[in-house]
Amino acid sequence: MFTQEDVIGFAKVTGDNNPVHLDTVYASGTIFKKPIMHGMLGASIFSKVFGTLFPGNGTIYLSQSLHFIRPMYVNETYDAFFEVIEVDRDKHRARIATKILSIDSKETMNGEALIMHVEKI
Amino acid sequence: MFTQEDVIGFAKVTGDNNPVHLDTVYASGTIFKKPIMHGMLGASIFSKVFGTLFPGNGTIYLSQSLHFIRPMYVNETYDAFFEVIEVDRDKHRARIATKILSIDSKETMNGEALIMHVEKI
Repeated sequence: MFTQEDVIGFAKVTGDNNPVHLDTVYASGTIFKKPIMHGMLGASIFSKVFGTLFPGNGTIYLSQSLHFIRPMYVNETYDAFFEVIEVDRDKHRARIATKILSIDSKETMNGEALIMHVEKI
Repeated sequence: MFTQEDVIGFAKVTGDNNPVHLDTVYASGTIFKKPIMHGMLGASIFSKVFGTLFPGNGTIYLSQSLHFIRPMYVNETYDAFFEVIEVDRDKHRARIATKILSIDSKETMNGEALIMHVEKI
């Protein structure tokens, strides 16, 4: 879950201050009806998991595809899913299917990551 | 250009606090020698341009592929390039090749975006 404060912080750091993310009045006049998260902020959960949990230190992020299927809203809970679909033990690489689902199991985003792990980068 | 402060802000918002981005001493012991930016922070320049400049309000981000080729460092200047490779006037969609180059013209990241524009989202 990301808060409106997180979205404001993301907009500040990245410079993407499109009002659909920040302005409740503007957002209410759009098809989304309320502020939506930046797609890249939602996708950052993949970066967080690879960078801190799986595999954590020693990760090198090689690629990520992202399909933004449905909007993600602030203050709503989402689940991120990771499925290892291929491991190359020689190259220390893995291909991982990544997706985010809303609590009513609707896909908001999917894609595929390629990551490498080195003992100590 | 992103500063170390931007990287700290991105880590706070996203939760990706891998020390290779934040800890100068840790980073000095890695192949990167100094702190590197989160790949998703570098990629956020694409989101910023689509969301605020081209086409700005009314953008709907449909997909983005990202290949992280070389590390990006804080306090270094990069250029982002956008090439429209296909326009679907009926669907108001465009495919755009996106890449980031260092000032010595080395590609740090490339990929492809699909965006849609509506008069008022």
